[in-house]
Amino acid sequence: MMQKFVPSFVQNFHARGFLLLFLFALLAPRFSSAQQPALNLMPTPASVQPGTGSLPVDSSFSVALTGYTEPRLERGVERFLSQLQRQTALLVNLKPGKSAQATLVVQTDHASKEIQEVGEDESYVLEVTSSGAKLTAPTPLGALHGLQTFLQLVDVSSNGFAAPAITIQDKPRFPWRGLMIDSARHFTPLEVIRRNLDGMEAVKLNVFHWHLTDNQGFRIESKKFPKLQELGSGGQFYTQEEIRDVIAYARDRGIRVYPEIEMPGHSTAIFVGYPEIASTPGPFKIDEEWGVMDPAIDPTKEQTYKFLDEFIAEMARLFPDHYFHIGGDEVNGKAWDASAKVQEFKKAHGYKTNEDLQAYFSTRVQKLVAKHGKAAVGWDEIFVPGAPKDIVIQSWRGPDSLAAAAKQGYRGILSNGYYIDLMWSAARHYVVDPLGGAAADLTPEQKQLVLGGETTMWSEYVNWENIDSRIWPRTAAIAERFWSPQVNDVPAMYVRLDLISKRLEWLGLTHRSGYHKMLQRIAGNATPQEFAALKTFADVLEPVKDYTRGDSTGWKAITTSPLNHIVDAVPPESDAARHFGELVDKFISTSCLDGDTAQRLRAQFIVWRDNDAKLRPLAQRSFLVQEAAQKSQDLSTLGALGLAVLDFIPKRQPAPDSWKAEQLAIIEQLKKPQAQLLLVPVAAVQKLVEAASAGGICTSAK
Amino acid sequence: MMQKFVPSFVQNFHARGFLLLFLFALLAPRFSSAQQPALNLMPTPASVQPGTGSLPVDSSFSVALTGYTEPRLERGVERFLSQLQRQTALLVNLKPGKSAQATLVVQTDHASKEIQEVGEDESYVLEVTSSGAKLTAPTPLGALHGLQTFLQLVDVSSNGFAAPAITIQDKPRFPWRGLMIDSARHFTPLEVIRRNLDGMEAVKLNVFHWHLTDNQGFRIESKKFPKLQELGSGGQFYTQEEIRDVIAYARDRGIRVYPEIEMPGHSTAIFVGYPEIASTPGPFKIDEEWGVMDPAIDPTKEQTYKFLDEFIAEMARLFPDHYFHIGGDEVNGKAWDASAKVQEFKKAHGYKTNEDLQAYFSTRVQKLVAKHGKAAVGWDEIFVPGAPKDIVIQSWRGPDSLAAAAKQGYRGILSNGYYIDLMWSAARHYVVDPLGGAAADLTPEQKQLVLGGETTMWSEYVNWENIDSRIWPRTAAIAERFWSPQVNDVPAMYVRLDLISKRLEWLGLTHRSGYHKMLQRIAGNATPQEFAALKTFADVLEPVKDYTRGDSTGWKAITTSPLNHIVDAVPPESDAARHFGELVDKFISTSCLDGDTAQRLRAQFIVWRDNDAKLRPLAQRSFLVQEAAQKSQDLSTLGALGLAVLDFIPKRQPAPDSWKAEQLAIIEQLKKPQAQLLLVPVAAVQKLVEAASAGGICTSAK
Repeated sequence: MMQKFVPSFVQNFHARGFLLLFLFALLAPRFSSAQQPALNLMPTPASVQPGTGSLPVDSSFSVALTGYTEPRLERGVERFLSQLQRQTALLVNLKPGKSAQATLVVQTDHASKEIQEVGEDESYVLEVTSSGAKLTAPTPLGALHGLQTFLQLVDVSSNGFAAPAITIQDKPRFPWRGLMIDSARHFTPLEVIRRNLDGMEAVKLNVFHWHLTDNQGFRIESKKFPKLQELGSGGQFYTQEEIRDVIAYARDRGIRVYPEIEMPGHSTAIFVGYPEIASTPGPFKIDEEWGVMDPAIDPTKEQTYKFLDEFIAEMARLFPDHYFHIGGDEVNGKAWDASAKVQEFKKAHGYKTNEDLQAYFSTRVQKLVAKHGKAAVGWDEIFVPGAPKDIVIQSWRGPDSLAAAAKQGYRGILSNGYYIDLMWSAARHYVVDPLGGAAADLTPEQKQLVLGGETTMWSEYVNWENIDSRIWPRTAAIAERFWSPQVNDVPAMYVRLDLISKRLEWLGLTHRSGYHKMLQRIAGNATPQEFAALKTFADVLEPVKDYTRGDSTGWKAITTSPLNHIVDAVPPESDAARHFGELVDKFISTSCLDGDTAQRLRAQFIVWRDNDAKLRPLAQRSFLVQEAAQKSQDLSTLGALGLAVLDFIPKRQPAPDSWKAEQLAIIEQLKKPQAQLLLVPVAAVQKLVEAASAGGICTSAK
Repeated sequence: MMQKFVPSFVQNFHARGFLLLFLFALLAPRFSSAQQPALNLMPTPASVQPGTGSLPVDSSFSVALTGYTEPRLERGVERFLSQLQRQTALLVNLKPGKSAQATLVVQTDHASKEIQEVGEDESYVLEVTSSGAKLTAPTPLGALHGLQTFLQLVDVSSNGFAAPAITIQDKPRFPWRGLMIDSARHFTPLEVIRRNLDGMEAVKLNVFHWHLTDNQGFRIESKKFPKLQELGSGGQFYTQEEIRDVIAYARDRGIRVYPEIEMPGHSTAIFVGYPEIASTPGPFKIDEEWGVMDPAIDPTKEQTYKFLDEFIAEMARLFPDHYFHIGGDEVNGKAWDASAKVQEFKKAHGYKTNEDLQAYFSTRVQKLVAKHGKAAVGWDEIFVPGAPKDIVIQSWRGPDSLAAAAKQGYRGILSNGYYIDLMWSAARHYVVDPLGGAAADLTPEQKQLVLGGETTMWSEYVNWENIDSRIWPRTAAIAERFWSPQVNDVPAMYVRLDLISKRLEWLGLTHRSGYHKMLQRIAGNATPQEFAALKTFADVLEPVKDYTRGDSTGWKAITTSPLNHIVDAVPPESDAARHFGELVDKFISTSCLDGDTAQRLRAQFIVWRDNDAKLRPLAQRSFLVQEAAQKSQDLSTLGALGLAVLDFIPKRQPAPDSWKAEQLAIIEQLKKPQAQLLLVPVAAVQKLVEAASAGGICTSAK
């Protein structure tokens, strides 16, 4: 989806958001512990009532299903018990029983829908006392969510594992809480899909939107049109059997799965096998590059709609979900302009623009989708006059267009602000609200039409190896946005995010361990000291933001490019830099009088200053380190600069203006990306320079 | 196997080995780089001839099979290419071709034996030039080994990935290079078995000895005697289908698989289903504890031999390997003493001792094994007068008993010295040689009877989660002992061991990542700072050595005890402590005049001194940290003590005797284990104390 263009509104929105956040971080108490105990739950439940004491969790722990039950719920409990075992290493009995004496009694009232529906009851109540726990839910959906909450409650304590006494009444704020994975640009192995579904379950996401087709590949088996996968996938596609397995796996975890079939653009891979429905003559081949490509489906031929009718029929049978995504974005119109036949058709039907023509196409496809019993989902572009009222608009443009649609009675979900391929911080995504912007002014009834949102994992620079680190843990923060009553305490979010991140690795996700392994590849046969230096360096780097990666010469990648650079390895958000930033904020908030913090800062600056010399021998041997050598030097410069600032503090006199100007000029240099990498702590050191200069906080308290 | 008793000979041997090693480490050049380039191969090949330049490895890399080939070899090449892809992230073609223009041409002459034999040709020649590589081997066995060598040659370089030009002629020193895994005391999931077979392939081990039965569980399906697994396994056993899969998986990797069925002792799990062949009346139940238990097979009943005849027949069909392990160890004789019938039998047959009776049993079982076309392997005890000449003695007693057997024409393999459950260092295992001790004095012909050795992974305190860290990387050092012409450069071994350890993680082994995850469990919802403090602490700890773990009150475990303590998480050998020890040695070797090293030591001591205060809040919340709190305090004490020593150095005067005595008294305290943990750097700090005292090296150069 729209990958080159970030509307300035959103940029401004975020800039403002950040300023507020920053002030908030300075002014608010460190955690919200005054209001409620640090529960470390993510997403935060709708309502929490702390109790007294805690429930011991030892190897006698047991679970009973006492109400309505079904195999899915039993499997859910078994999964819960395995996870509990992994979390504690206690050899608990892995089978649920029926005894009301069990440690955790799960009482479910009735079955959920056979095919999970949008807005189904997902609520649960979890009561934990020092003698036992009870989980009550109308249907297995709520019970599954409650089990995940219980797992998060269990922690090591001073005398064994335990869960705190508590009463939680919980339900989601939005019914549509999704993650989209683009399996077209880089194929996503099934194992990766499965572990990400595990992660989704852990944070109560309930929709897996599977982007299965694009210019770079057609990833789904069609028995009706086998050339789609035979010629359009390079051998990398999912069989229908595998798709059914994924759907069953997801349903077990309370997650809907619906497919996206991109049209009329982003469809080159279709034309490799079926050029007859393209607007321009073939032959076509699978794109190895990305971007907005010219080829587009021919919307003027009846043959096109016959093809789509039969194909959608087949897919509608394969995917039980009620929703079906028809894409619709980024049609540049060039293929239509190039076709005399299309031009004629436009004239004959009185379509002035290509947008008019796309609206015609979109309407016909929406009817086909409806014919096969589904409701269409599509990007903003499918919202055309006269569209059926049951469509769902997925907005990459922002909450304003969602609000506009809602005013006309259309439903929508927000993805703008949740593009996790942009490499933003968790905080920046977290403050985006589906009911933000113009949507905040909707009537309560209109607000109901905003169903929720989806994070979008576009995969240009994402493969099996680093996808987890692009999705997690940031998606857990977004999941909280979708589930929890409005939550805006960013520092508290980060405390919980660090913890959930660990739990997600326990489920088999590799967002942290994969980073380590990728660094080992970059380091090759490095000595332990060299590897430590590489890690010190990489730990404070982040990939460049937004869609700037391909801009530099030598860095444009295609689908077959190896993703083995430092930029591919480092997480989108540097934890080390964030913790350093917190330390700097703490220092400044004490008017730089806190000697212990000063000492910690000094130690950090010395490590950074001395790191380049330690890394240099490896840089000479590894091209993957060498290409970022400038940034490594920059880190040393930054360390030296930080030490110079600290040297001014004890004087409690403002640093001279000339010095300040000099430092800020250096800092501007250090901010420049190299090897598609940013040195993140530069901004915090800049704060220090300013604090130590005339009028700065470090000088005002003397 | 013999788990309480380490012969004093071996202890002396090791003590002497250590002294030599220590002197060697002081006197030898740091690495053997003067003699040959640092090739980072493990095991070291038999012969290496360096070339000029290097072979680039880029995405055009290809492999051709030009000589004899078979599906196993093709799969081997595909696995090789996948590993290469994982190692480099290059999207190489994963299918071997036939073109002589391929980057790596594999020329194999003929098939290896249908069932891998002891002493089959495993040799290969690998020639790498700047324009291509050729791997030549008589059979696929050698080719598989050569592919692993090539993978280890590939490293990141200043301009891409590359393999150095080189000619390697390689073959193993010993034909029997094994790893035994005890799947009885703790069940080993198949996934764990498979990844360990991958690790074995990487270091050219060729025998997987599967300890499948013991008092704590009968882990193999018998169709003939189904109560064996139904009543004797607690549901944790391998089906015959799974066993066949493992055998095929191992054969693909050039690894033989043979089973061990323990008898006449260590067989309680058999009696749960078949009490009729026990010496004493039942009922029996699966043991949850370990040690030498009383129950033993009744050697006097013909029914026993009928049972064993049929059972061995079934197992002999299941396992194609020519060898069959019949256990034989640790029969305490109590069950026989308790049975009047057995006493009668002994008298009737003129057997004076229970050893005589066991010899009778052993001889009959060996005949049954021979009847079904196999040769018996057994622990030292099976070496009885008149034993068939084709048996193989697995020695837990030491190379002397191996030498004694060889002198009578019997073959043997060494396991004494390779008991990796004893938590020894890699160095300590590495210096043990199958032809050491009395075996060094054998004639060349007799030496041929010493087939090699096996490391033994007994699983009392080992489960799916920490088994990798108990096996790896130390077993790679032992594998080198088995493969390479005598290698004794311990520091060079450690350099290569660090590197192979990383590569083994790439294969999916979890010996390092598992440690991290187990620490996370221990830390629970710790802050990042607390977790860092826990890691600093745990990184310098090792489990207590030998079989002392169960000795302390409160630490005796049974099969259902959770293995979630720090002692279960930390590797047997602390890398951090080893690197610290190297630093201390370096410092002392410069007469303590190296300012840079002094500074590094000082920084380390400060970190240790300050660590306990950082860890204490977590210790108050986590019982798993709290139980080791004394050791954490000890680390702080050690840090402070280290700083005090460093303070003496600049004075270049001997520290007073009273001071020295005081420090050494503290050090004695710090050496005491707590929570089954040792604080490893204590010994190196003791060296420093002595060096800084009267007559010490730090004072002699003033």
